[in-house]
Amino acid sequence: MKISFIGSGNLAWHLAQKLEKSDHQILEVYSRTLPNALALCEKLYQARAITHLNLSDSKAGLFIFSLSDDILPQIIEQIDLPENCMAVHTSGSQPLNVFSGLKNKKIKTGVFYPLQTFSKNKKVNISNIPFCIEASDRETHKVLSEVAASLSQKVFSIDSRQRKQLHIAAVFACNFVNFLWWAAQDILNKEKLPFHLLYPLIEETYKKMMETGPEAAQTGPARRKDLKMISQHLDELSKQPDYQKIYHLLSRLILEKYK
Amino acid sequence: MKISFIGSGNLAWHLAQKLEKSDHQILEVYSRTLPNALALCEKLYQARAITHLNLSDSKAGLFIFSLSDDILPQIIEQIDLPENCMAVHTSGSQPLNVFSGLKNKKIKTGVFYPLQTFSKNKKVNISNIPFCIEASDRETHKVLSEVAASLSQKVFSIDSRQRKQLHIAAVFACNFVNFLWWAAQDILNKEKLPFHLLYPLIEETYKKMMETGPEAAQTGPARRKDLKMISQHLDELSKQPDYQKIYHLLSRLILEKYK
Repeated sequence: MKISFIGSGNLAWHLAQKLEKSDHQILEVYSRTLPNALALCEKLYQARAITHLNLSDSKAGLFIFSLSDDILPQIIEQIDLPENCMAVHTSGSQPLNVFSGLKNKKIKTGVFYPLQTFSKNKKVNISNIPFCIEASDRETHKVLSEVAASLSQKVFSIDSRQRKQLHIAAVFACNFVNFLWWAAQDILNKEKLPFHLLYPLIEETYKKMMETGPEAAQTGPARRKDLKMISQHLDELSKQPDYQKIYHLLSRLILEKYK
Repeated sequence: MKISFIGSGNLAWHLAQKLEKSDHQILEVYSRTLPNALALCEKLYQARAITHLNLSDSKAGLFIFSLSDDILPQIIEQIDLPENCMAVHTSGSQPLNVFSGLKNKKIKTGVFYPLQTFSKNKKVNISNIPFCIEASDRETHKVLSEVAASLSQKVFSIDSRQRKQLHIAAVFACNFVNFLWWAAQDILNKEKLPFHLLYPLIEETYKKMMETGPEAAQTGPARRKDLKMISQHLDELSKQPDYQKIYHLLSRLILEKYK
């Protein structure tokens, strides 16, 4: 497949190289800042770095928009694409119909969303990453599924509404989880205790959840309905009212699970 | 060292066997229910299962109370121990002075708290577990530190006040973290999406935090100060008011970190 990238960020960086290794051909890499586009092209066989959006003569059949959510709509409005190509984005939070802003209404559109975080200087095992596919039509869906399957064993059809909930679930399971680790570190540091004291327990918690799922893995004072200990802990947290609020809310919700 | 166990639960189960492997001698295992004490004694060389608390003739120098928090105080009041022995408990939430209930006030006391969860049928790598030590006197502290060091490379002096905060931090980093995974599963299942979609992202989140610490690993809409997306997500969660509360509280606290 002949593919061009609109955007040269972390995700484009990994995806373009992996696609080439899977025998796809990267023709163009667009970035507003030429050095960024050039840096990625240096990693590729024959891709051209471009800073303009007139791509109506491009030979690519698939355009992958890998841009931040705030820029995506305006780039879609500005770009000129060839007839009969496919335009897809890689965003977890943008709906498929963000492409309704395209000048050429005949272009087929889709979403090609790999559910993972990417950093340029960190290797990723792409074959393990779930690819979430959505498309304006059956043919595009088939093409995107095949491209995803050439990279990963895990390909899922996920519509825009599901993708939004998936993104929210990821915020809970990753961003908020990380923040609770941060809060735990903060609580320990106030007592001059090192956070690494908790590493073995955190590791075990993670492994147990992956083995049994979160419901069976739930433990702790609220799970045991140990109201006395919960109330002691809330007292102890009286000087840290924000952490007290977290403790109160999450303990209440766990208690309600076992009513 | 000659050691007896008061209690035969999950922790006693692992600890007694590991102590024997480290050349300590287990003399008695007390349980209110004989079969429980017998089951553990079968795993040991020469320990006797007992159901009474008159241990004043015991040859043990160290008594490890490994009991649930609600039973510990009453067993301490009932037990008879030999002169000049040491009595320690393994609880993260009980203070050292829970032993003030002992009949014989001359007995030296301590806390011997391994910071890990234990299940009988699951192997543990005890050498990696942090042991938190507290003692009524310098000599007991030295003995407990040596016993802990015979099991693990990680031995820490932690007083009762610190241990309480450590326990609260563990609730955040483990129990509450697991509940957020459960919430994420719930959000996905409502959209008929499987939770395992998030496994690679959860794994990466865990690994990144362990590599860089939670502050550097923080990502997500609140980290990026993406108020538009936060407000969209809160709207999406309007039918799940409890999850909306979690989202609101944790996003606010993350935003405040980057003010």
